[in-house]
Amino acid sequence: MAEQNKLVKEITSMDEDFAKWYTDVVIKAELASYSSVRGCMVVRPYGTALWENIRNELDSRFKATGHENVMMPMFIPEGLLQKEKDHVEGFAPEVAWVTHGGEEELQERLCVRPTSETLFCDHYKDIIQSYKDLPKLYNQWCSVVRWEKTTRPFLRTMEFFWQEGHTMHETAEQAVEETERMLNIYADFCTDCLAIPVVKGQKTDKEKFAGAEKTYTIEALMHDGKALQSGTSHYFGDGFARAFDITYTDRNNTLQYPHQTSWGMSSRIIGAIIMTHGDNSGLVLPPAVAPVQLVIVPIATHKPGVTEKATELYERLAKSFRVKIDLTDNSAGWKFAEYEMKGVPLRLEIGPKDIENNQCVLVRRDSREKSFVSLDSLEESVSALLKDVHDALYEKALARREEMTYSVASLDEMVENAASRPGFIKAMWCGELECEEKLKEVAGVTSRCIPFEQEKISDTCVCCGKPAKHMLYWGKAY
Amino acid sequence: MAEQNKLVKEITSMDEDFAKWYTDVVIKAELASYSSVRGCMVVRPYGTALWENIRNELDSRFKATGHENVMMPMFIPEGLLQKEKDHVEGFAPEVAWVTHGGEEELQERLCVRPTSETLFCDHYKDIIQSYKDLPKLYNQWCSVVRWEKTTRPFLRTMEFFWQEGHTMHETAEQAVEETERMLNIYADFCTDCLAIPVVKGQKTDKEKFAGAEKTYTIEALMHDGKALQSGTSHYFGDGFARAFDITYTDRNNTLQYPHQTSWGMSSRIIGAIIMTHGDNSGLVLPPAVAPVQLVIVPIATHKPGVTEKATELYERLAKSFRVKIDLTDNSAGWKFAEYEMKGVPLRLEIGPKDIENNQCVLVRRDSREKSFVSLDSLEESVSALLKDVHDALYEKALARREEMTYSVASLDEMVENAASRPGFIKAMWCGELECEEKLKEVAGVTSRCIPFEQEKISDTCVCCGKPAKHMLYWGKAY
Repeated sequence: MAEQNKLVKEITSMDEDFAKWYTDVVIKAELASYSSVRGCMVVRPYGTALWENIRNELDSRFKATGHENVMMPMFIPEGLLQKEKDHVEGFAPEVAWVTHGGEEELQERLCVRPTSETLFCDHYKDIIQSYKDLPKLYNQWCSVVRWEKTTRPFLRTMEFFWQEGHTMHETAEQAVEETERMLNIYADFCTDCLAIPVVKGQKTDKEKFAGAEKTYTIEALMHDGKALQSGTSHYFGDGFARAFDITYTDRNNTLQYPHQTSWGMSSRIIGAIIMTHGDNSGLVLPPAVAPVQLVIVPIATHKPGVTEKATELYERLAKSFRVKIDLTDNSAGWKFAEYEMKGVPLRLEIGPKDIENNQCVLVRRDSREKSFVSLDSLEESVSALLKDVHDALYEKALARREEMTYSVASLDEMVENAASRPGFIKAMWCGELECEEKLKEVAGVTSRCIPFEQEKISDTCVCCGKPAKHMLYWGKAY
Repeated sequence: MAEQNKLVKEITSMDEDFAKWYTDVVIKAELASYSSVRGCMVVRPYGTALWENIRNELDSRFKATGHENVMMPMFIPEGLLQKEKDHVEGFAPEVAWVTHGGEEELQERLCVRPTSETLFCDHYKDIIQSYKDLPKLYNQWCSVVRWEKTTRPFLRTMEFFWQEGHTMHETAEQAVEETERMLNIYADFCTDCLAIPVVKGQKTDKEKFAGAEKTYTIEALMHDGKALQSGTSHYFGDGFARAFDITYTDRNNTLQYPHQTSWGMSSRIIGAIIMTHGDNSGLVLPPAVAPVQLVIVPIATHKPGVTEKATELYERLAKSFRVKIDLTDNSAGWKFAEYEMKGVPLRLEIGPKDIENNQCVLVRRDSREKSFVSLDSLEESVSALLKDVHDALYEKALARREEMTYSVASLDEMVENAASRPGFIKAMWCGELECEEKLKEVAGVTSRCIPFEQEKISDTCVCCGKPAKHMLYWGKAY
């Protein structure tokens, strides 16, 4: 156990220093490492495999709802970025500018895309003429760049990986419906694949996307009580269409502006997985996206037949699951600690005695519960346990979120609690920017969202005491 | 047929103007369109789906041979790019430079990666310590940027999409073996999935990759007799490892430099597909990567039961193939022309008479051959025909390449033929750069490769008359 302790010891305890625990897990579980490029990370094979599983799950949901992928340029000429006023104000301060191509100075600077609304609009102008061309339901998988001062792997990096959907519709209603549809896809994906419970709601005007009329969001609560915005879906109305002069001939032969949406989920979600399910032994991965769902560790491999049996099980299970077998000469204890660190949902141990009894041991990463299962029905046992792990992860995360969600009814209560009690704070709001800014200033919280599921905590705004319009979730956020 | 003619008329004939034919096909088949960003294209849904199929096929071959995907930063700090002398000389003149982040001028410029050897080496330095860490078999899917003066969709664009494999090995032998393995994977992929015959060989020193010791290449011959380099695989020796000070402790506990490879195939290969198989009606796609393998066009849809039967067949076939059904109110003739333009390998027509006879019509895109097939064994007929289409495309391309490949034995013969007869020219070479440069100057040809399959055409160099070292393929190239 000496080795195992050594490996575990290398992670800071999350109770001691949550931020340090987080980066320790990212590095030691080999999800990502730092690079020589300021603010950019190297996503290592394990992290890339995780992202590919996330991508494939989301992509199939997008395609099933009629969306098509495209690949847009990574550069935006300065003039194009400036076409929509609010949008350029929001993004220009944080873009990377290309000023030279080879030896030559460019006549017009190009920014590396921070998001691609302007590029999609520029293309839509060319390809949308008639209502028959609508809806256009496009998505792209790519990386984008935002010039961040301080960065942390996955949570905030200068370059990050994401998908960005950009759609155009005949009517406002259809566009709003799309905005909601995609938010629901994100929420269902978080629930069904990541075992992360989320709150669905709308951003306030202060927090909405630059250029959007409405921004919908899903907000998750991390282990340390901070919120993480996990996916957003924006309704633009016809603002960009007007700025880019995109028109179509409608069913009555009249010229109209189409209505637009965009929506995105990024590699940040890997940060959410880490901080929702991880523990002091490292990562805990939800089975649906885990690069390795089950690792086989043969016990006492010097005994005849053990390696052969373990390999036979590997070949059997690899037909139905993402499986790895570890035949290195590291000790079993070392291997246990390594795959715990990497968050592999199930470990299969098999030794001479197990073989005699036609059984093996399955150990869950989340609860460390052991079961002895018959080799005859191994696939069924693994399937059932993976499902149990998923459900238990979700229930645990949900219970923690509920425990950490509470209501406040006065400004004093808000200030006092925000300082001492991490979590989602539910409080009423009058709808004024002034109160939102004041709460940030005096309590250090930002509005996370106006949840679709409203409750009435009191009649008045927690800040100014005037009549309340909405109940909001407030909190500290990543 | 009026509509059909109209659609067909929009493509320039390839005999009239091959370059114009090419861009017509790219645009009209909706593979890509021009963007407002100089030298960058928008890859449209149809082109993106094609690229995704190419990616998935290659990716599964890479993974089956033990390679893992990673995601590296898109930027390279200037100092990092400069670490390997030959490499920076080759690439610095054609990179895009980021000089500002937001309002702030950078202390060190960043280039947008033109290729990522330097980034991989920078990472390998951190993660390679022992022979136990080797081999490292990494790949990434991304886009890269090279500042090109003149561009053409897919063939040469400032930003292009590709995969780049970067591997590290204990010994030179293992690295050379990897270089060959990956070239063979590319060649087999071209043969088995794209129906494109390729010549495998080695680049001359003049044509090899900046910083490589050896570059292997696969060269394909386009319809117009020009060569297209379709994939390359490089052996670096330990040159980069020395420049980046990457060392490992070998099995004898001695410090060694590892040996390196890189290999890439890009979205250029879509250009190769177009120019190998296309005709004057548009694109012709090889079934293995076609986004739509079969399109169903119901005939006389006003007759009862036709749409229902067509939809029933669609649902049946969609279980085994990539299928589309066109239920728009465009005429059948219009639809025929549209899917011919888009290169869909098979068209299924079904009308009232066919339904009566429990049959349908399958029409091949490549030969336009029609067959009447029973609905009882439809899946088998479609499978067999898709295989026939693939084989016929390959045979036709191979026959054309053979017809367009010829030998020359003197400089005069080379000059005369190069001017009048497009194709691969086989000729002997002494191995001197001087002769290679002279042939470019006087005959306008470049060396394509030293093919692995050598033949002896004469004893002397076609240019200087000195003893020949190799037989080379020469030609004009994209």
